[in-house]
Amino acid sequence: MRQVNELTDLIAHFPGIGPRQARRVVQFLLSSGSAFREKLARLIIEVGQSASPCAICWRFDDLRGNKICSICSNESRDRDLLMVVEKDIDIEGIESSGAYRGLYFVLGGLMTMTERKSARIVRTRELITHIQNNETSEVIWALSTTPEGDYTAREIMKEINTVKPNVTTTLLGRGLSVGAEIEYADSETLRSALKNRA
Amino acid sequence: MRQVNELTDLIAHFPGIGPRQARRVVQFLLSSGSAFREKLARLIIEVGQSASPCAICWRFDDLRGNKICSICSNESRDRDLLMVVEKDIDIEGIESSGAYRGLYFVLGGLMTMTERKSARIVRTRELITHIQNNETSEVIWALSTTPEGDYTAREIMKEINTVKPNVTTTLLGRGLSVGAEIEYADSETLRSALKNRA
Amino acid sequence: MRQVNELTDLIAHFPGIGPRQARRVVQFLLSSGSAFREKLARLIIEVGQSASPCAICWRFDDLRGNKICSICSNESRDRDLLMVVEKDIDIEGIESSGAYRGLYFVLGGLMTMTERKSARIVRTRELITHIQNNETSEVIWALSTTPEGDYTAREIMKEINTVKPNVTTTLLGRGLSVGAEIEYADSETLRSALKNRA
Amino acid sequence: MRQVNELTDLIAHFPGIGPRQARRVVQFLLSSGSAFREKLARLIIEVGQSASPCAICWRFDDLRGNKICSICSNESRDRDLLMVVEKDIDIEGIESSGAYRGLYFVLGGLMTMTERKSARIVRTRELITHIQNNETSEVIWALSTTPEGDYTAREIMKEINTVKPNVTTTLLGRGLSVGAEIEYADSETLRSALKNRA
Repeated sequence: MRQVNELTDLIAHFPGIGPRQARRVVQFLLSSGSAFREKLARLIIEVGQSASPCAICWRFDDLRGNKICSICSNESRDRDLLMVVEKDIDIEGIESSGAYRGLYFVLGGLMTMTERKSARIVRTRELITHIQNNETSEVIWALSTTPEGDYTAREIMKEINTVKPNVTTTLLGRGLSVGAEIEYADSETLRSALKNRA
Repeated sequence: MRQVNELTDLIAHFPGIGPRQARRVVQFLLSSGSAFREKLARLIIEVGQSASPCAICWRFDDLRGNKICSICSNESRDRDLLMVVEKDIDIEGIESSGAYRGLYFVLGGLMTMTERKSARIVRTRELITHIQNNETSEVIWALSTTPEGDYTAREIMKEINTVKPNVTTTLLGRGLSVGAEIEYADSETLRSALKNRA
Repeated sequence: MRQVNELTDLIAHFPGIGPRQARRVVQFLLSSGSAFREKLARLIIEVGQSASPCAICWRFDDLRGNKICSICSNESRDRDLLMVVEKDIDIEGIESSGAYRGLYFVLGGLMTMTERKSARIVRTRELITHIQNNETSEVIWALSTTPEGDYTAREIMKEINTVKPNVTTTLLGRGLSVGAEIEYADSETLRSALKNRA
Repeated sequence: MRQVNELTDLIAHFPGIGPRQARRVVQFLLSSGSAFREKLARLIIEVGQSASPCAICWRFDDLRGNKICSICSNESRDRDLLMVVEKDIDIEGIESSGAYRGLYFVLGGLMTMTERKSARIVRTRELITHIQNNETSEVIWALSTTPEGDYTAREIMKEINTVKPNVTTTLLGRGLSVGAEIEYADSETLRSALKNRA
């Protein structure tokens, strides 16, 4: 069946789903009944129509005819702070921690040391323009604490310093995460944890 | 966004996908572009229209206007043998092993010892009718080698024996699977492996 | 502390224990008290004195001054059957399955396709001598169902056929192990399971 | 064989080793030769004789006839700082991070909310005496960031405050550990990471 194969191929592109699980999902869709399939197809179309990237922070949101999202247009947020995240879903976790009241910028991806991802994925240019045109006084880097995350922050910070040297840049604090055991902590984490003791 | 939440709920029903991964899939769909979303939605509708359950074996297939699937209508398959599987995808593995030339029957589910699943899921009635109306001489049980699989086979075999006592029923052979180590094999597997040595 | 480092090195040789866990074991021994350490040291010496390899099957056993073990000297075991295993512990599982009443031979290791392990590890010569000098009529290969296990059985079977061609050689049966799901079974296992159906 | 069973029981007490792996370790010891077993037994005895708990910090060390260990007797360490750890091995990681120059105290265990472990395991009394008799000005809690670790620190800090209220108590900083992804960080870790940004 051509449609089964084509659908399996599309679903195998979903994050965290391989070819084998894609086949199981298609079997599940086949046996789910036409009402389920029609609702699913309709929502896939609607979700794209309802959500667009915010013209300021690039987060997907239901803009309701506007150009900017509910966070960027919220007058009570602190416009001095700009937190740079890799992807939309990172914002959800930070918002639900309740600890941050500034603005966000969705970078779209991380640079790797071997290949600089095309500007289409990592929005370096858009971030710098944003900082130039706005009242940002501190850029908070909230990327993965991996070599790629550190490298991306370092490279873009250099460019920011060139165009707007009075902007402060900070990294989220390193330390022991919840549930950590001292015995298994790495040296870098222990050094940060000791420095940040309180 | 209402549509994001509704779509996340639907995708969280997919096999092997929890609420967290469902959110990641929706974020992926949002950032995939409208062409991808439209192709996906179209295939979800088409796959349901193209595939229907075969009137004989209940396997989903593109029936092309007929009532029976390509395996059931294949004159060269051995009509004496009927292999009972739990779900469509089990057939793929057996077909690709190239070792079986008989017919199939998709049971749709397994019975559990605590609750007998509704007849709508486990097609006991349909299987017995099939055996009564066809030239089946051997029913091969190819269910999971779990307590539920064994219980389901045993219960339905009793009913088959009542209505058509001259049908032979067999279970797929137990033994060492590829990559097994003797040290970690359980007693039942070792007993079967010893009996089936060759 | 020299002794801590040397003991950690020895314990890191234990099967399934890496350098990190070896350090934890040494810390555990340090804090366990001298009575525990003395009992442990005494049993490590005694276990070596009490157990010796059987002159026939190479299994370690308390020979109580004899040269052959309790299984090899058991008159009620079936002397026609010789099951070849890789290591002592494999015998425990087969004995506790209660399905086998013949004799054993502990091969000591497996051959690999890239390097033939020295005769000191894989007791090919000793096995062939055993078969020549005894009333064995069937050699049952109970090795891991891995490429190495299959290769070892095949290579030694060739030599056995040369010196004693009327000995039957069998492999433990392949099939679905307990708890297997059809969907995830490989082709070779499915073919064997179908052939061994009963 | 009695010795095999007794030795298996002792080894099954080792941290991270269950009954099954204990049997494999004993088989390994049987086949390792008497030289290996004798060296192992000798080191198990010697390691206990060479190492004793330091009279100040309770760390096991080769005291060479003294009562206090190499860290506690090192004049160049900062006597104002006392880091409380659960077990000896935690000290190794912190020492190799190179970030700490104070003294240590090995608590021996953690309290649980349901049962207070006997004073023999958690050295609350010894810790308080140590702080009373020494020039400690800051106690750094380096316990697991689990409910048990937090509870233990909180309970003992209360007692310290009663007997020596001018001692500062700090906890190792919480934050993102190396390799963490924002998407999967919990709220408490994100709040600390934001507070400790730098």
